[in-house]
This record gives sequence, structure tokens and C-alpha cells, in this order.
Amino acid sequence: MCELLAMSANVPTDIVFSFTGLAQRGGVTGPHVDGWGITFYEGKGSRTFKDAHPSSESHIAELIQSYPIKSEVVVSHIRQANRGCVSLENTHPFTRELWGRYWTYAHNGQLSDYQDKFTVSRFQPVGDTDSELAFCWLLEKVVDKFGEQEPEDISLVYQFIAKLADEIRCLGVFNMILTDGAHLMSYCSNNLCYITRKAPFGKAKLIDTDVVIDFDKETTPDDIVTVIATRPLTKDEEWHILAPGEWKLFRKGVLIMDEA
Amino acid sequence: MCELLAMSANVPTDIVFSFTGLAQRGGVTGPHVDGWGITFYEGKGSRTFKDAHPSSESHIAELIQSYPIKSEVVVSHIRQANRGCVSLENTHPFTRELWGRYWTYAHNGQLSDYQDKFTVSRFQPVGDTDSELAFCWLLEKVVDKFGEQEPEDISLVYQFIAKLADEIRCLGVFNMILTDGAHLMSYCSNNLCYITRKAPFGKAKLIDTDVVIDFDKETTPDDIVTVIATRPLTKDEEWHILAPGEWKLFRKGVLIMDEA
Repeated sequence: MCELLAMSANVPTDIVFSFTGLAQRGGVTGPHVDGWGITFYEGKGSRTFKDAHPSSESHIAELIQSYPIKSEVVVSHIRQANRGCVSLENTHPFTRELWGRYWTYAHNGQLSDYQDKFTVSRFQPVGDTDSELAFCWLLEKVVDKFGEQEPEDISLVYQFIAKLADEIRCLGVFNMILTDGAHLMSYCSNNLCYITRKAPFGKAKLIDTDVVIDFDKETTPDDIVTVIATRPLTKDEEWHILAPGEWKLFRKGVLIMDEA
Repeated sequence: MCELLAMSANVPTDIVFSFTGLAQRGGVTGPHVDGWGITFYEGKGSRTFKDAHPSSESHIAELIQSYPIKSEVVVSHIRQANRGCVSLENTHPFTRELWGRYWTYAHNGQLSDYQDKFTVSRFQPVGDTDSELAFCWLLEKVVDKFGEQEPEDISLVYQFIAKLADEIRCLGVFNMILTDGAHLMSYCSNNLCYITRKAPFGKAKLIDTDVVIDFDKETTPDDIVTVIATRPLTKDEEWHILAPGEWKLFRKGVLIMDEA
């Protein structure tokens, strides 16, 4: 399996604190040693750092922990390979352009008997994971339904994707993070939780390593930051655990839609 | 304007030496301070490091110069903005997936009166540069002609792209690097040169900073490495200067096709 981490914020925010916890699970406090990746959005642009080495030993992961990149949307993943070998092309997150936006996706779980379902043509996987193929199929279906221009009401697209995710969940475990750079969607199959931090901010301590942060010193009173993770990253805070089939859509740190 | 750097090699090779020279041109020996990027292929996978800061001051560029990533295909670019503001989404190289491969592209030059020509739908630019729009148009035309599956003879695709590049060159300056991860194409409008290094290897000295390398100590006798750049990066070596309209296609460091 793997672990997911994502962030949606209303101001450019660095994710050093949360990533420091996650990176420990890539070889120290967790078995996810088969690569890792992180995508930062800055405006419509995005950049992804990836490594097929364990995050706990990676020079590039070290850079991410020491060089704060401020971003409004972040998606990260550490991998314990099941389908597909350990290689750069199989390392999440995966990105494709659609409607003049970069869509970025990461998956935790494993699917079975999916080859017949996931027929793709326009979006083709580069690697050989079930995860990337599922992503391509999602986008293929979105284009089939909405065409070559983004619909005015993007929420229709995410509602449609949630229905597709329900179908995928029938094939196995499908915890998913998906973003178009503005919205951030989390879809839960069995393991996903989130926390929204806003004023008044307090302190938090990482579970995986001995680091404490005082968010009050790192933020302004208007900041709203949502962090999504496979498992809670901090003690002393209340994380919302998602139920199977539950999904949430965030924008600028705020929950704007869910399965209700 | 901007500067381009690319590499094609028959064994995974690091580009630290050449990139060290190029990075100096991003603020020290050259005026290209509006961002930089570099894409490394490892197998079919690729990873891109980008920064909207000058390469000569960038923490991430420092990492690239100190942490050798071995790759068979590399594309890099340092930017001096003309069309499009300084931002991450306008930073080259640009990547799109087609036929289950990541295609990566960088452009040096400036185009005029191009909006009417470059109508796109399936591949849309995320930023607002002439460069990214031209890339999207190239891929759009490729799909129009060859469809959703890669043709058996990929050389037909590159010959077609060269013809499209001839059309683009009528709109201004269009020096281009393009790769599908296996092949590396260079198209010259006015400034592009290359060198192919193979045994017997010698020494070379960077033009832009005081660094000397002895390739004989860094290579094996079977290595073949081609480096493409806007302007020669080394003294004491003979770089081949491309003529306007000239293009070259390399694979595993070897020239396999050109405009002849």
C-alpha cells in the first residue's frame, strides 16, 4: 500500500511540517520505500519532485524539507509497490493536462480485474500501475461526457468523477487525491482523513518524528489550511476520518462540496 | 530570448558539467533570469525541476549541480521572458503525454502573429507563452495526422514535425528541442549547436565558469553522449553549428536522421 498527503489553502503555505512526518513513513516509521513524489501548484503552474528512492533517504526529499515552497495546492504520495515495478514512471503523483489545467492525481490501494474496464485511448498510461491507468480512464470519461471545453460549473465534473470513483472502488481499494490546481478532491475507500486549521491556531506534534509546530507563529488570522492524509500526522489535533465511499471537495482550504 | 540545453546518451549520464555552465548564464554570464527548468528521463519516466527564480541563485539548481541524476535524455531551458509573464506555468520545459510517452519541449525565440495559426483543442496551453501554444499545436497536428496510436515508424512523426517547425519559423525565431524520451530532436532557426562525445575522450573547459572536466575519467570507451546547446558551452572542443532550418534527430547519443 502507500500513503497520501495533500493540502488546500487560501494563501500560499508551505507543507514542510506535514511532509516531514510523511517522509518518515518512507523507510523509518513506515514501509513505503518504493519511491515518493510531491506536486506543488503555484498559480496555474505546477512542479513535481519525484524519486524512486525511499523518501527517508532521498536528497530531493531533504531539499523539500529544508526549502519551503509556498503553494495553495499540494499532492504527495509515498509508495509501497504492489502493481508495477519500482521505477520513476510508476511513481505518483501523475499529471495530465486537460482544459488548459494540469490535473494531478495520486492513489492509495490496489485494484483487481481492471484491465477490461479501463479502456483508454486519448489518455494513455506511461507506466504499468493500476493507479495511472485508473487516472487515465477517469480523464477519458470526463472528456467523453463534457467535451473539449471546461464546463462553467466545475462541480458537475467532480460529482461525475465521484460516481466513477464509486465504480472503481468495486474493483478494490481506491483512496484517491485529485486536483485541477484550484480544487482538491479526496475520495475514501478505507483510509483517508483530513483536518482544517484556522484561527485560533494551536500547537501540534508530529506522530512520526519529534517535531512540534506552533501554527499561531506561522500563520495569519485569516489563513485556512486543510491537510488530507492516509492516517493522522499529528497528535493533539482532531482529524476527521472519512467513511468508505465518502468524498470531499476543497477550494482555498474550505470544504465546498461532498457526497451529501 | 532564452538558452537551450539538451542531451542524448547511450548510457545513463549526468549532465552536471553542462548544466553548471548553463546555470551561470541565468544571471551571471547571461541575462536569462526569468526562470529555468530541466527534465530528466529515466526509462519511460521523467521528472522536471523548475523554478521561476534565476538559475544562478536557485536552491533547486544548486541541488541539480551537486546531485548527479543519471539520464539518457535531458532537456533544459533558462528563460529571459518576452511573451508571457514570469511565472511557473510559463517556465520551460513543457510536457504532455501522447501515445503513452511523455513528450517534452523547450523553445528559444519569439513568434509574432501566431494566434490565428495555432488553433488547439485537445492540447491546451496552461500558461500564456507563444512557446507552449506552439508545442500544443505541434502535438495537435501530430494527432490529427497519425491518430491515437503511435505509428510503427516514428521517424515519419519527426519528419512531419520538422515540416511544421518550418511553418512556425515563418512567424519568428524558433529554435526547438523536442523529445519523446527515446528520441531527441533539435530544430534550428538561428542559434543551435551540438557536439557528440565518444572515445577517445579528452578534457574540456566550460566557457562560463572555471570548471574543467576530463571526460576520459567519467566515461567508459563505449559511451556516446550528444549535447545540444544554444551556444557552445566549452572551449577546446569543436561544436557543430546548425544552419537556419536545419534539424537533427538523435537516439542514444547517435545522429539517426536530419533534414537531408
